[in-house]
Amino acid sequence: MKLIRFGAEGQEKPGVIINDTWYDVSHLVNDYNEAFFADDAINQLQKDIEKGGLSEVAKTTRLGAAMARPSKLVCVGLNYIDHAKETDAEIPTEPILFFKATSAIVGPNDNVIIPKNSKKTDWEVELALVIGKKASYVSEEDALNHVAGYVLHNDYSEREFQIERNGQWVKGKSCDTFAPLGPFIATPDEIEDVHNLRLWLTVNGNKVQDGNTANLIFNIPFLVSYISQFMTLLPGDVITTGTPAGVGLGMKPEPWYLNEGDVVELGIDGLGSSKQHVKAYTKQ
Amino acid sequence: MKLIRFGAEGQEKPGVIINDTWYDVSHLVNDYNEAFFADDAINQLQKDIEKGGLSEVAKTTRLGAAMARPSKLVCVGLNYIDHAKETDAEIPTEPILFFKATSAIVGPNDNVIIPKNSKKTDWEVELALVIGKKASYVSEEDALNHVAGYVLHNDYSEREFQIERNGQWVKGKSCDTFAPLGPFIATPDEIEDVHNLRLWLTVNGNKVQDGNTANLIFNIPFLVSYISQFMTLLPGDVITTGTPAGVGLGMKPEPWYLNEGDVVELGIDGLGSSKQHVKAYTKQ
Repeated sequence: MKLIRFGAEGQEKPGVIINDTWYDVSHLVNDYNEAFFADDAINQLQKDIEKGGLSEVAKTTRLGAAMARPSKLVCVGLNYIDHAKETDAEIPTEPILFFKATSAIVGPNDNVIIPKNSKKTDWEVELALVIGKKASYVSEEDALNHVAGYVLHNDYSEREFQIERNGQWVKGKSCDTFAPLGPFIATPDEIEDVHNLRLWLTVNGNKVQDGNTANLIFNIPFLVSYISQFMTLLPGDVITTGTPAGVGLGMKPEPWYLNEGDVVELGIDGLGSSKQHVKAYTKQ
Repeated sequence: MKLIRFGAEGQEKPGVIINDTWYDVSHLVNDYNEAFFADDAINQLQKDIEKGGLSEVAKTTRLGAAMARPSKLVCVGLNYIDHAKETDAEIPTEPILFFKATSAIVGPNDNVIIPKNSKKTDWEVELALVIGKKASYVSEEDALNHVAGYVLHNDYSEREFQIERNGQWVKGKSCDTFAPLGPFIATPDEIEDVHNLRLWLTVNGNKVQDGNTANLIFNIPFLVSYISQFMTLLPGDVITTGTPAGVGLGMKPEPWYLNEGDVVELGIDGLGSSKQHVKAYTKQ
């Protein structure tokens, strides 16, 4: 099943994609939120959908983030060897974790806004996953039973805020619009092998990232199990698994970053693609 | 006004404290959540309360965290010079920010659970604030207009997870039960000078922390303004402002940490006190 949320910002409704057509399921479920994932409502939704009679949604409609605001957006840093190397970082011996503010979450094709006083806004295509069942101290063997689905993510990062402004990375990771999530959540049955998915990103049509989840240093079961040793993952929480080489920070001979007017497109096999137009911050 | 939430875990209802007596206001407001703070419902609540006729709540009732789960719990690190010195850290030239998982939030007198495999669970008494009005790029001058109130916090921290397990602090800050918040939110009119409040913490009756918010390196208006340059603070979000000297990590000649059976008590002038019994993790 492929889950979407469509409609104006803050008024998104749940929908599904069937055979490339979008359908409204807001009469069947309230939202793709903590209660939905906790109740395993995904299985009931599948049954209800099979009865048919759904209303189509125009594909010109805006897509929101594919899930309601989660309790947390947990990120894994430096989880591809080539990316760790390009940023002159050491290869992690265990996963590096950080959070992005959930207020950064936007729809997959919404504009990305360069923050005020930012000179180093960068991109990172990533495979993210959505937690289904609450996860605390789960084993690697059991970990995938706690995953409701997978989704495309762009982990936008302001490198000066992240690295040069004292301490922790959160300052450069949490700016508004820095977390497009979508177009859709694919349930695990839609993905043949989550550890063999090509992921790519272009800036103004030029391919800058082109990797494969086969090269993750720490794989999905390990990550879910690992994170659950430090905190309880709640239904609907999002984990994003790191980016391959090709970010602006790693460009040779000089790093380069996004400017107003740039267009970023990205995609992952089986998880669709997204496209963000880069805008400067203007007081709303 | 002093806002409390009372009742069993997950079923807390909103209440208020008037002249040291607890009252139920759940017929007047739904919860102390984002919608409550965004709608400035606090002023309406004050008016409704003045009409009288509230039901009393027994003071033996459990208190929950003083606010519903916020979108984020933003923490400021090393914001007292004496604490930075005791942990051999440099005095920050600008605030160090990190997040705690909101799944760590518990009531003020709930047990604190030492995580599995933890040897270094530590305490940190802190003054926290709750955002009233959405804050994005606010000035220092305007910052206090975005604060709905103040609350006592214990920023429990697992020092091995935080410092010795690769990368960012979040691993040691986000464990379940690591964020008691309460007993109550005091609205700003209750606090004469938020920058002159004594804050203290005892372990098994021995005073280990005894500081004053007069010694904050970065004060509250600065912090709200500063954080709002990196992310939008939503109504109900919590910012916690750092701890003074006297944590386990800073003990001489050797650090010492919490063990099962220990009792931690803490308080801040005008914001009451809280008490946590330390328990070992056991599979629930």
